[in-house]
Amino acid sequence: MKKKQKRTSLVAERMDMDLGNYLAPLPVTLISTRREGESANVCTVAWNGIVNSKPPMVSISLRKERYSHESIMQSKEFVINLVGKSLAKAVDYCGVKSFRDEDKVATLGLEMEGMPELKTALALADAPLSLGCKVQDVISLPSHDLFIAEVLSVRIQKDLLDGRKALRLDRADLLSYVHGQYYELGRWLGFFGWSIADKKRFAKRKHAWFKHAKPKGS
Amino acid sequence: MKKKQKRTSLVAERMDMDLGNYLAPLPVTLISTRREGESANVCTVAWNGIVNSKPPMVSISLRKERYSHESIMQSKEFVINLVGKSLAKAVDYCGVKSFRDEDKVATLGLEMEGMPELKTALALADAPLSLGCKVQDVISLPSHDLFIAEVLSVRIQKDLLDGRKALRLDRADLLSYVHGQYYELGRWLGFFGWSIADKKRFAKRKHAWFKHAKPKGS
Repeated sequence: MKKKQKRTSLVAERMDMDLGNYLAPLPVTLISTRREGESANVCTVAWNGIVNSKPPMVSISLRKERYSHESIMQSKEFVINLVGKSLAKAVDYCGVKSFRDEDKVATLGLEMEGMPELKTALALADAPLSLGCKVQDVISLPSHDLFIAEVLSVRIQKDLLDGRKALRLDRADLLSYVHGQYYELGRWLGFFGWSIADKKRFAKRKHAWFKHAKPKGS
Repeated sequence: MKKKQKRTSLVAERMDMDLGNYLAPLPVTLISTRREGESANVCTVAWNGIVNSKPPMVSISLRKERYSHESIMQSKEFVINLVGKSLAKAVDYCGVKSFRDEDKVATLGLEMEGMPELKTALALADAPLSLGCKVQDVISLPSHDLFIAEVLSVRIQKDLLDGRKALRLDRADLLSYVHGQYYELGRWLGFFGWSIADKKRFAKRKHAWFKHAKPKGS
Protein backbone atom coordinates (compact mmCIF):
# COMPACT_ATOMS: atom_id res chain seq x y z
CA MET A 1 0.00 0.00 0.00
CA LYS A 2 1.38 3.41 -0.98
CA LYS A 3 2.14 6.02 1.60
CA LYS A 4 -0.59 8.64 1.50
CA GLN A 5 -0.71 12.30 2.38
CA LYS A 6 -2.40 13.13 5.65
CA ARG A 7 -6.11 13.60 5.04
CA THR A 8 -6.75 16.32 7.62
CA SER A 9 -9.33 18.09 5.52
CA LEU A 10 -11.46 14.96 5.23
CA VAL A 11 -11.80 14.41 8.95
CA ALA A 12 -15.31 15.32 10.11
CA GLU A 13 -15.63 17.54 13.14
CA ARG A 14 -15.99 15.61 16.38
CA MET A 15 -17.34 16.34 19.83
CA ASP A 16 -17.53 14.78 23.28
CA MET A 17 -20.71 13.02 24.24
CA ASP A 18 -22.40 11.59 27.34
CA LEU A 19 -21.29 8.11 28.31
CA GLY A 20 -23.26 5.20 26.90
CA ASN A 21 -23.16 1.75 25.35
CA TYR A 22 -22.57 2.58 21.72
CA LEU A 23 -20.59 -0.40 20.46
CA ALA A 24 -22.36 -1.62 17.28
CA PRO A 25 -23.50 -3.47 15.21
CA LEU A 26 -24.07 -6.22 17.77
CA PRO A 27 -25.09 -9.81 17.09
CA VAL A 28 -28.64 -10.13 18.35
CA THR A 29 -29.39 -13.72 19.32
CA LEU A 30 -31.98 -15.86 21.06
CA ILE A 31 -30.55 -17.53 24.14
CA SER A 32 -32.35 -20.71 25.14
CA THR A 33 -32.22 -22.05 28.66
CA ARG A 34 -34.18 -24.53 30.76
CA ARG A 35 -34.50 -25.30 34.43
CA GLU A 36 -35.01 -28.86 35.65
CA GLY A 37 -38.73 -29.67 35.50
CA GLU A 38 -39.65 -26.59 33.47
CA SER A 39 -40.27 -26.02 29.80
CA ALA A 40 -37.73 -24.20 27.64
CA ASN A 41 -37.28 -20.44 27.78
CA VAL A 42 -35.90 -18.14 25.12
CA CYS A 43 -34.59 -14.63 25.76
CA THR A 44 -33.04 -12.04 23.49
CA VAL A 45 -29.45 -10.94 24.01
CA ALA A 46 -27.31 -8.51 22.05
CA TRP A 47 -24.51 -8.40 24.58
CA ASN A 48 -22.64 -11.45 23.52
CA GLY A 49 -19.40 -12.09 21.68
CA ILE A 50 -16.57 -14.44 20.84
CA VAL A 51 -13.82 -14.45 23.46
CA ASN A 52 -11.48 -17.32 22.58
CA SER A 53 -10.33 -19.21 19.52
CA LYS A 54 -9.09 -22.60 20.61
CA PRO A 55 -11.28 -23.95 22.05
CA PRO A 56 -14.16 -21.84 20.72
CA MET A 57 -15.51 -19.77 23.61
CA VAL A 58 -18.17 -17.10 23.84
CA SER A 59 -19.52 -14.68 26.40
CA ILE A 60 -22.99 -13.39 27.14
CA SER A 61 -23.88 -10.66 29.58
CA LEU A 62 -27.19 -10.76 31.43
CA ARG A 63 -28.82 -8.46 33.92
CA LYS A 64 -28.86 -10.23 37.28
CA GLU A 65 -32.66 -9.90 37.59
CA ARG A 66 -33.43 -11.74 34.35
CA TYR A 67 -35.11 -15.11 34.60
CA SER A 68 -32.54 -16.61 32.23
CA HIS A 69 -29.73 -15.43 34.51
CA GLU A 70 -30.85 -17.67 37.35
CA SER A 71 -31.56 -20.52 34.91
CA ILE A 72 -27.97 -20.40 33.68
CA MET A 73 -26.65 -20.14 37.23
CA GLN A 74 -28.49 -23.39 37.99
CA SER A 75 -27.81 -25.43 34.85
CA LYS A 76 -24.46 -23.87 33.81
CA GLU A 77 -25.67 -24.27 30.23
CA PHE A 78 -27.28 -22.23 27.48
CA VAL A 79 -27.68 -22.26 23.72
CA ILE A 80 -26.90 -19.24 21.55
CA ASN A 81 -29.25 -19.33 18.56
CA LEU A 82 -28.39 -17.06 15.63
CA VAL A 83 -31.43 -15.48 14.05
CA GLY A 84 -32.44 -14.53 10.54
CA LYS A 85 -35.12 -12.08 9.49
CA SER A 86 -37.87 -14.72 9.61
CA LEU A 87 -37.35 -14.68 13.39
CA ALA A 88 -37.21 -10.87 13.69
CA LYS A 89 -40.55 -10.53 15.47
CA ALA A 90 -39.72 -13.37 17.87
CA VAL A 91 -36.39 -11.67 18.62
CA ASP A 92 -38.01 -8.43 19.60
CA TYR A 93 -40.85 -10.16 21.49
CA CYS A 94 -38.45 -12.31 23.54
CA GLY A 95 -36.54 -9.15 24.47
CA VAL A 96 -39.55 -7.40 25.99
CA LYS A 97 -41.41 -10.34 27.60
CA SER A 98 -40.32 -12.52 30.51
CA PHE A 99 -40.87 -16.23 31.16
CA ARG A 100 -42.21 -15.09 34.54
CA ASP A 101 -45.25 -13.70 32.70
CA GLU A 102 -45.71 -16.13 29.85
CA ASP A 103 -44.35 -19.18 28.06
CA LYS A 104 -42.83 -17.39 25.06
CA VAL A 105 -41.94 -20.61 23.26
CA ALA A 106 -45.63 -21.62 23.27
CA THR A 107 -46.90 -18.13 22.38
CA LEU A 108 -44.61 -17.90 19.39
CA GLY A 109 -44.99 -21.56 18.39
CA LEU A 110 -41.23 -22.08 18.43
CA GLU A 111 -39.77 -25.53 17.94
CA MET A 112 -37.15 -26.69 20.42
CA GLU A 113 -34.83 -29.67 20.12
CA GLY A 114 -32.13 -31.38 22.18
CA MET A 115 -28.60 -30.09 21.81
CA PRO A 116 -25.61 -32.48 21.73
CA GLU A 117 -23.35 -32.34 24.82
CA LEU A 118 -25.92 -30.41 26.89
CA LYS A 119 -27.98 -31.95 29.69
CA THR A 120 -30.74 -29.41 30.26
CA ALA A 121 -30.86 -26.55 27.75
CA LEU A 122 -32.62 -27.05 24.41
CA ALA A 123 -31.83 -25.46 21.06
CA LEU A 124 -34.22 -23.43 18.95
CA ALA A 125 -34.87 -25.72 15.99
CA ASP A 126 -36.02 -22.75 13.87
CA ALA A 127 -32.59 -21.08 14.15
CA PRO A 128 -30.13 -21.21 11.26
CA LEU A 129 -27.32 -22.03 13.69
CA SER A 130 -27.15 -22.96 17.38
CA LEU A 131 -24.16 -23.07 19.70
CA GLY A 132 -24.35 -25.38 22.73
CA CYS A 133 -22.49 -23.61 25.54
CA LYS A 134 -21.18 -24.79 28.91
CA VAL A 135 -20.37 -22.07 31.45
CA GLN A 136 -16.73 -21.95 32.57
CA ASP A 137 -16.73 -18.75 34.58
CA VAL A 138 -19.09 -16.04 35.82
CA ILE A 139 -17.68 -12.52 36.21
CA SER A 140 -19.79 -10.29 38.42
CA LEU A 141 -20.09 -6.74 37.08
CA PRO A 142 -22.10 -3.87 38.55
CA SER A 143 -25.41 -4.36 36.70
CA HIS A 144 -24.75 -7.58 34.79
CA ASP A 145 -23.04 -10.92 35.10
CA LEU A 146 -20.71 -11.97 32.31
CA PHE A 147 -20.94 -15.68 31.51
CA ILE A 148 -17.87 -17.11 29.83
CA ALA A 149 -18.62 -20.41 28.16
CA GLU A 150 -17.09 -23.05 25.95
CA VAL A 151 -18.89 -24.05 22.77
CA LEU A 152 -19.43 -27.81 23.01
CA SER A 153 -21.71 -28.39 20.03
CA VAL A 154 -22.90 -26.71 16.86
CA ARG A 155 -26.08 -27.40 14.91
CA ILE A 156 -26.87 -25.74 11.59
CA GLN A 157 -29.57 -25.76 8.97
CA LYS A 158 -28.32 -28.09 6.26
CA ASP A 159 -28.87 -25.56 3.50
CA LEU A 160 -26.22 -23.26 5.03
CA LEU A 161 -23.61 -25.58 3.53
CA ASP A 162 -22.74 -25.02 -0.10
CA GLY A 163 -21.71 -27.62 -2.69
CA ARG A 164 -18.15 -27.56 -1.32
CA LYS A 165 -19.48 -28.20 2.24
CA ALA A 166 -18.42 -24.67 3.23
CA LEU A 167 -20.54 -22.79 5.76
CA ARG A 168 -22.41 -19.89 4.11
CA LEU A 169 -23.70 -17.68 6.90
CA ASP A 170 -24.75 -15.15 4.25
CA ARG A 171 -27.65 -17.52 3.55
CA ALA A 172 -28.97 -17.04 7.09
CA ASP A 173 -30.20 -13.42 6.65
CA LEU A 174 -28.71 -12.54 10.05
CA LEU A 175 -29.89 -9.59 12.13
CA SER A 176 -27.88 -6.88 13.85
CA TYR A 177 -28.73 -4.60 16.73
CA VAL A 178 -27.56 -1.00 16.53
CA HIS A 179 -28.35 1.28 19.46
CA GLY A 180 -31.98 0.22 19.85
CA GLN A 181 -32.66 -0.60 16.19
CA TYR A 182 -32.71 -3.90 14.30
CA TYR A 183 -31.10 -4.25 10.86
CA GLU A 184 -30.61 -6.83 8.18
CA LEU A 185 -27.15 -7.28 6.75
CA GLY A 186 -26.42 -5.37 3.58
CA ARG A 187 -23.84 -5.34 0.82
CA TRP A 188 -20.82 -7.65 0.93
CA LEU A 189 -17.58 -5.67 1.07
CA GLY A 190 -14.83 -8.26 1.01
CA PHE A 191 -13.14 -11.18 2.71
CA PHE A 192 -10.54 -11.08 5.47
CA GLY A 193 -7.28 -10.12 3.70
CA TRP A 194 -8.89 -8.43 0.67
CA SER A 195 -6.93 -5.20 1.24
CA ILE A 196 -3.64 -6.93 0.41
CA ALA A 197 -4.93 -9.34 -2.24
CA ASP A 198 -3.89 -8.65 -5.85
CA LYS A 199 -6.64 -7.94 -8.38
CA LYS A 200 -6.66 -11.45 -9.81
CA ARG A 201 -6.99 -13.14 -6.43
CA PHE A 202 -9.65 -10.68 -5.31
CA ALA A 203 -11.70 -11.27 -8.47
CA LYS A 204 -11.39 -15.04 -8.13
CA ARG A 205 -12.48 -15.08 -4.49
CA LYS A 206 -15.32 -12.62 -5.17
CA HIS A 207 -16.58 -14.78 -8.01
CA ALA A 208 -16.46 -17.93 -5.86
CA TRP A 209 -18.25 -16.07 -3.06
CA PHE A 210 -21.19 -14.92 -5.14
CA LYS A 211 -21.46 -18.22 -6.99
CA HIS A 212 -22.52 -19.84 -3.69
CA ALA A 213 -24.47 -16.93 -2.26
CA LYS A 214 -27.89 -18.61 -2.19
CA PRO A 215 -28.89 -22.26 -2.33
CA LYS A 216 -30.71 -23.57 -5.38
CA GLY A 217 -34.41 -23.02 -5.19
CA SER A 218 -34.32 -20.31 -2.51
CA MET B 1 -49.98 -11.95 20.15
CA LYS B 2 -52.23 -14.89 19.18
CA LYS B 3 -51.30 -18.42 20.01
CA LYS B 4 -50.08 -20.09 16.85
CA GLN B 5 -50.11 -23.67 15.68
CA LYS B 6 -46.79 -25.44 15.86
CA ARG B 7 -44.91 -24.80 12.63
CA THR B 8 -43.10 -28.13 12.35
CA SER B 9 -43.31 -28.26 8.60
CA LEU B 10 -41.49 -24.93 8.25
CA VAL B 11 -38.45 -25.97 10.27
CA ALA B 12 -35.51 -26.57 7.96
CA GLU B 13 -33.56 -29.75 8.39
CA ARG B 14 -30.59 -29.36 10.70
CA MET B 15 -27.33 -31.23 11.25
CA ASP B 16 -24.40 -31.28 13.66
CA MET B 17 -21.25 -29.51 12.61
CA ASP B 18 -17.61 -29.25 13.67
CA LEU B 19 -16.94 -26.81 16.49
CA GLY B 20 -16.06 -23.26 15.55
CA ASN B 21 -16.56 -19.57 16.27
CA TYR B 22 -19.74 -18.87 14.39
CA LEU B 23 -21.35 -16.10 16.42
CA ALA B 24 -22.25 -13.31 13.97
CA PRO B 25 -22.62 -10.56 12.83
CA LEU B 26 -19.82 -9.11 14.96
CA PRO B 27 -18.93 -5.44 15.39
CA VAL B 28 -15.60 -5.01 13.62
CA THR B 29 -13.68 -2.11 15.16
CA LEU B 30 -10.28 -0.45 15.12
CA ILE B 31 -8.65 -0.59 18.54
CA SER B 32 -6.09 2.15 19.13
CA THR B 33 -3.35 1.78 21.69
CA ARG B 34 -0.04 3.47 22.46
CA ARG B 35 2.99 2.63 24.55
CA GLU B 36 4.94 5.33 26.35
CA GLY B 37 7.46 6.88 23.92
CA GLU B 38 5.95 5.23 20.84
CA SER B 39 3.56 6.42 18.18
CA ALA B 40 -0.04 5.24 18.08
CA ASN B 41 -0.99 1.79 16.87
CA VAL B 42 -4.29 0.60 15.44
CA CYS B 43 -5.41 -3.02 15.22
CA THR B 44 -8.60 -4.64 14.01
CA VAL B 45 -10.79 -6.56 16.43
CA ALA B 46 -14.12 -8.29 15.89
CA TRP B 47 -14.16 -10.05 19.22
CA ASN B 48 -15.54 -7.27 21.33
CA GLY B 49 -18.86 -6.58 22.97
CA ILE B 50 -20.87 -4.73 25.57
CA VAL B 51 -20.77 -6.41 28.99
CA ASN B 52 -22.37 -3.98 31.45
CA SER B 53 -24.95 -1.24 31.43
CA LYS B 54 -24.30 1.03 34.38
CA PRO B 55 -21.55 2.05 34.15
CA PRO B 56 -21.02 1.34 30.44
CA MET B 57 -18.47 -1.45 30.12
CA VAL B 58 -17.08 -3.35 27.17
CA SER B 59 -14.84 -6.32 26.54
CA ILE B 60 -12.28 -7.07 23.85
CA SER B 61 -10.47 -10.33 23.36
CA LEU B 62 -6.94 -10.36 21.99
CA ARG B 63 -4.54 -13.14 21.14
CA LYS B 64 -1.72 -13.00 23.68
CA GLU B 65 0.95 -12.65 20.94
CA ARG B 66 -0.52 -9.49 19.42
CA TYR B 67 1.45 -6.28 19.80
CA SER B 68 -1.65 -4.47 21.04
CA HIS B 69 -2.09 -7.06 23.80
CA GLU B 70 1.17 -6.09 25.46
CA SER B 71 0.44 -2.38 24.87
CA ILE B 72 -2.84 -2.69 26.77
CA MET B 73 -1.18 -4.71 29.52
CA GLN B 74 1.24 -1.79 29.98
CA SER B 75 -1.08 1.21 29.67
CA LYS B 76 -4.36 -0.41 30.88
CA GLU B 77 -6.06 1.73 28.24
CA PHE B 78 -7.43 1.45 24.72
CA VAL B 79 -9.88 3.16 22.43
CA ILE B 80 -12.59 1.27 20.53
CA ASN B 81 -13.20 3.12 17.26
CA LEU B 82 -16.35 2.21 15.34
CA VAL B 83 -15.82 2.12 11.60
CA GLY B 84 -17.88 3.00 8.57
CA LYS B 85 -17.39 1.83 5.02
CA SER B 86 -14.95 4.66 4.22
CA LEU B 87 -12.56 2.89 6.62
CA ALA B 88 -13.21 -0.61 5.23
CA LYS B 89 -9.80 -1.00 3.61
CA ALA B 90 -8.03 0.31 6.74
CA VAL B 91 -10.01 -2.19 8.83
CA ASP B 92 -8.89 -5.13 6.76
CA TYR B 93 -5.31 -3.86 6.47
CA CYS B 94 -4.96 -3.31 10.23
CA GLY B 95 -6.17 -6.87 10.75
CA VAL B 96 -3.46 -8.47 8.64
CA LYS B 97 -0.45 -6.20 9.42
CA SER B 98 1.37 -5.73 12.73
CA PHE B 99 2.96 -2.63 14.27
CA ARG B 100 6.07 -4.83 14.60
CA ASP B 101 6.45 -4.64 10.82
CA GLU B 102 5.15 -1.19 9.98
CA ASP B 103 3.60 1.99 11.32
CA LYS B 104 0.05 1.40 10.05
CA VAL B 105 -1.18 4.82 11.12
CA ALA B 106 1.46 6.45 8.87
CA THR B 107 0.93 4.02 5.97
CA LEU B 108 -2.79 4.64 5.93
CA GLY B 109 -2.53 8.37 6.68
CA LEU B 110 -4.86 8.03 9.65
CA GLU B 111 -5.47 10.99 11.96
CA MET B 112 -5.15 10.41 15.68
CA GLU B 113 -6.31 12.69 18.49
CA GLY B 114 -6.24 12.78 22.28
CA MET B 115 -9.08 11.07 24.11
CA PRO B 116 -10.63 12.60 27.25
CA GLU B 117 -9.89 10.68 30.50
CA LEU B 118 -7.09 8.62 28.91
CA LYS B 119 -3.39 9.19 29.59
CA THR B 120 -1.68 7.28 26.80
CA ALA B 121 -3.99 5.87 24.12
CA LEU B 122 -5.18 8.11 21.27
CA ALA B 123 -8.45 7.97 19.36
CA LEU B 124 -8.83 7.58 15.61
CA ALA B 125 -10.09 10.99 14.55
CA ASP B 126 -11.47 9.52 11.30
CA ALA B 127 -13.85 7.24 13.20
CA PRO B 128 -17.55 8.09 13.50
CA LEU B 129 -17.46 7.21 17.20
CA SER B 130 -14.70 6.41 19.70
CA LEU B 131 -14.96 4.90 23.17
CA GLY B 132 -12.16 5.67 25.65
CA CYS B 133 -11.69 2.53 27.75
CA LYS B 134 -9.88 1.85 31.02
CA VAL B 135 -9.11 -1.80 31.81
CA GLN B 136 -10.71 -3.13 35.00
CA ASP B 137 -9.90 -6.81 34.70
CA VAL B 138 -8.01 -9.24 32.49
CA ILE B 139 -9.36 -12.79 32.22
CA SER B 140 -6.82 -15.27 30.90
CA LEU B 141 -8.32 -17.76 28.45
CA PRO B 142 -6.51 -20.53 26.54
CA SER B 143 -5.57 -18.62 23.35
CA HIS B 144 -6.75 -15.10 24.19
CA ASP B 145 -6.98 -12.64 27.03
CA LEU B 146 -10.32 -10.99 27.67
CA PHE B 147 -9.99 -7.34 28.69
CA ILE B 148 -12.95 -5.97 30.62
CA ALA B 149 -12.98 -2.19 30.58
CA GLU B 150 -15.06 0.75 31.65
CA VAL B 151 -15.99 3.37 29.05
CA LEU B 152 -14.70 6.69 30.42
CA SER B 153 -15.26 8.94 27.42
CA VAL B 154 -17.12 9.07 24.12
CA ARG B 155 -16.30 11.15 21.05
CA ILE B 156 -18.52 11.28 18.00
CA GLN B 157 -18.66 12.97 14.65
CA LYS B 158 -20.97 15.92 15.09
CA ASP B 159 -23.13 15.00 12.11
CA LEU B 160 -24.22 11.80 13.87
CA LEU B 161 -26.55 13.95 15.95
CA ASP B 162 -29.87 14.85 14.40
CA GLY B 163 -31.90 18.02 14.89
CA ARG B 164 -33.25 16.65 18.18
CA LYS B 165 -29.67 15.97 19.39
CA ALA B 166 -30.37 12.22 19.19
CA LEU B 167 -27.53 9.91 18.19
CA ARG B 168 -28.07 8.44 14.71
CA LEU B 169 -25.66 5.56 14.32
CA ASP B 170 -27.40 4.70 11.06
CA ARG B 171 -25.52 7.66 9.57
CA ALA B 172 -22.18 5.98 10.31
CA ASP B 173 -22.43 3.24 7.64
CA LEU B 174 -21.12 0.70 10.16
CA LEU B 175 -19.44 -2.54 9.16
CA SER B 176 -20.04 -6.08 10.39
CA TYR B 177 -17.86 -9.15 10.33
CA VAL B 178 -19.50 -12.48 9.54
CA HIS B 179 -17.31 -15.58 9.56
CA GLY B 180 -14.44 -14.07 7.59
CA GLN B 181 -16.48 -11.65 5.47
CA TYR B 182 -17.15 -7.92 5.83
CA TYR B 183 -20.63 -6.46 5.30
CA GLU B 184 -22.38 -3.14 5.32
CA LEU B 185 -25.60 -2.83 7.26
CA GLY B 186 -28.76 -3.28 5.26
CA ARG B 187 -32.46 -2.67 5.64
CA TRP B 188 -33.90 -1.30 8.88
CA LEU B 189 -36.35 -3.75 10.46
CA GLY B 190 -37.67 -2.02 13.55
CA PHE B 191 -36.95 -0.51 16.93
CA PHE B 192 -36.69 -2.29 20.27
CA GLY B 193 -40.28 -3.06 21.26
CA TRP B 194 -41.78 -2.92 17.76
CA SER B 195 -43.31 -6.39 18.08
CA ILE B 196 -45.71 -5.20 20.78
CA ALA B 197 -46.33 -1.67 19.44
CA ASP B 198 -49.75 -0.96 17.99
CA LYS B 199 -49.95 0.06 14.32
CA LYS B 200 -50.25 3.77 15.05
CA ARG B 201 -47.24 3.89 17.35
CA PHE B 202 -45.19 1.77 14.96
CA ALA B 203 -46.03 4.05 12.02
CA LYS B 204 -45.20 7.17 14.05
CA ARG B 205 -41.82 5.87 15.23
CA LYS B 206 -40.97 4.58 11.76
CA HIS B 207 -41.76 7.96 10.24
CA ALA B 208 -39.62 9.78 12.83
CA TRP B 209 -36.78 7.32 12.23
CA PHE B 210 -36.60 7.79 8.48
CA LYS B 211 -37.10 11.53 8.72
CA HIS B 212 -33.70 11.76 10.40
CA ALA B 213 -31.94 8.99 8.49
CA LYS B 214 -29.30 11.15 6.80
CA PRO B 215 -28.04 14.65 7.58
CA LYS B 216 -28.84 17.46 5.21
CA GLY B 217 -26.34 17.71 2.38
CA SER B 218 -24.93 14.20 2.79
